Amino acid sequence: MLITIYLIAITAEAMSGALAAGRRNMDIFGVAFIAFVTALGGGTIRDMVLGHFPIGWTQHPPYIYLVISAGLVTTLFARFMHHLKTVFLVLDALGLIAFSLIGCEVALGMGYAPVVVIMAGMITGIFGGILRDVLCNQVPVVFRQELYASVSLAVCSLYLVLRDLGLGTEANTLISFGLGLALRLCAIWRGWKLPTFSYRQRWD
Amino acid sequence: MLITIYLIAITAEAMSGALAAGRRNMDIFGVAFIAFVTALGGGTIRDMVLGHFPIGWTQHPPYIYLVISAGLVTTLFARFMHHLKTVFLVLDALGLIAFSLIGCEVALGMGYAPVVVIMAGMITGIFGGILRDVLCNQVPVVFRQELYASVSLAVCSLYLVLRDLGLGTEANTLISFGLGLALRLCAIWRGWKLPTFSYRQRWD
Amino acid sequence: MLITIYLIAITAEAMSGALAAGRRNMDIFGVAFIAFVTALGGGTIRDMVLGHFPIGWTQHPPYIYLVISAGLVTTLFARFMHHLKTVFLVLDALGLIAFSLIGCEVALGMGYAPVVVIMAGMITGIFGGILRDVLCNQVPVVFRQELYASVSLAVCSLYLVLRDLGLGTEANTLISFGLGLALRLCAIWRGWKLPTFSYRQRWD
Repeated sequence: MLITIYLIAITAEAMSGALAAGRRNMDIFGVAFIAFVTALGGGTIRDMVLGHFPIGWTQHPPYIYLVISAGLVTTLFARFMHHLKTVFLVLDALGLIAFSLIGCEVALGMGYAPVVVIMAGMITGIFGGILRDVLCNQVPVVFRQELYASVSLAVCSLYLVLRDLGLGTEANTLISFGLGLALRLCAIWRGWKLPTFSYRQRWD
Repeated sequence: MLITIYLIAITAEAMSGALAAGRRNMDIFGVAFIAFVTALGGGTIRDMVLGHFPIGWTQHPPYIYLVISAGLVTTLFARFMHHLKTVFLVLDALGLIAFSLIGCEVALGMGYAPVVVIMAGMITGIFGGILRDVLCNQVPVVFRQELYASVSLAVCSLYLVLRDLGLGTEANTLISFGLGLALRLCAIWRGWKLPTFSYRQRWD
Repeated sequence: MLITIYLIAITAEAMSGALAAGRRNMDIFGVAFIAFVTALGGGTIRDMVLGHFPIGWTQHPPYIYLVISAGLVTTLFARFMHHLKTVFLVLDALGLIAFSLIGCEVALGMGYAPVVVIMAGMITGIFGGILRDVLCNQVPVVFRQELYASVSLAVCSLYLVLRDLGLGTEANTLISFGLGLALRLCAIWRGWKLPTFSYRQRWD
């Protein structure tokens, strides 16, 4: 099930990347590139940080075709997409959580310490969007949004705690997924945000 | 022969990096750094993504001296360089194609799937310029230029097809190189570009 | 001793990252993230470039807690921090040099060539700040500051030369540290800078 959600999620992420590329008037190569990086960049950075080679997508060529196609198709239907805003937000939430849990599993399988497992989950969940924003020359939106990275943090932590309590992987995944999704959707719906830190002082 | 072209190409790329650094008023350390990243960054990212350690330039100190020297020398002769615009465009085209073919070879030697081989070639060809632009705080030009990444894509694909058809490496390199160079120079000369995707709608 | 200085240094770097995040009005997740990247990003990039897995901080969870806490605490005391400007500059100088020497040691232990050892030291010393600035969407300050990367270069080179002359690691560290610190503090005090390269010509 996590795989199905994963495929839906990378498709949705690729589409969000394509729209960001369109806002910068990129050519269709740029669109495909940003779509790829948004969808698969998080897992790539996670694997590079953990030393987990070969990197995931290099062993799954269909994922590559999927996200590039999703990016290119987006250019055709972009004008209708704002009608689907809610759908996208839900798909993105699904993706955030699926990515996080998959990232945790990879790090667990390599025997990393719990805090590194959590960070691996968060890197997988949010780094695609960070790379997208850096390549589009803007401050990453994930640093200023409604609870987003925090949802990833909560999901990963919950997953580890339940795992320590002896819960099986399937039940654990279901519970973590459900609670994480609820938290993210509530955060969007109610506009929950983390407190912001504004610093204006100049030192010179 | 590919090695000679490679050395010429990293020199030219280092010089283009140095000029970009000059446009941002960097100090000569910044110039050397951006020159290095522009020339050798593509291969570095490729090796990090493929898990191909040790990374190329760490085993070839002379390459490091070459690109840093090229960057620094550029600061002395920069004012005359726009007379050499055509020369630079040709050297850059040589580099793009040499980098792409070398990237393919590395990935082939590690047994990756064809689509990953092509992506390794493209990463090697274009990522130096992407890193240069990100460090100089601008949207990467490669996402908006005349056929550039697409030339890399075409060269890598052709190389793989001819290889599958049983052509020897030398003949294959020559043919792929020649056709790729012709394509890139035509694209510059005629201003061929990919279609652009512009997206203005705001969702909120 | 290098470890103590290292811990002080990553704390100071994390605080500088948090302030940079505050200048961009990030939320506290962004603050923690930028603090982490500023403090531990240099070592991360070094390990990824050298193929030195597992990466340092993944084996030392307390470092992770330390830098994230330092980042978050900074948001509480930020308004008083400009009184500590001098303290920060000294801590940052300590950090630059400690990072550089640690980076050299890692590369030496892996048998890399001297120029790569020096680059590993410099990457460790300066890449945290580069990542901080890229994520905050500005041209890295390290490319335009008073002698900074150059101090790292000088310290790493001196360390290698003294090592070749047969000096023991402890004495070598002490001497390189002292001279490097003196050089950096002089550079701040006297405003020593590298010459800048400004290039305005447009080619089209």
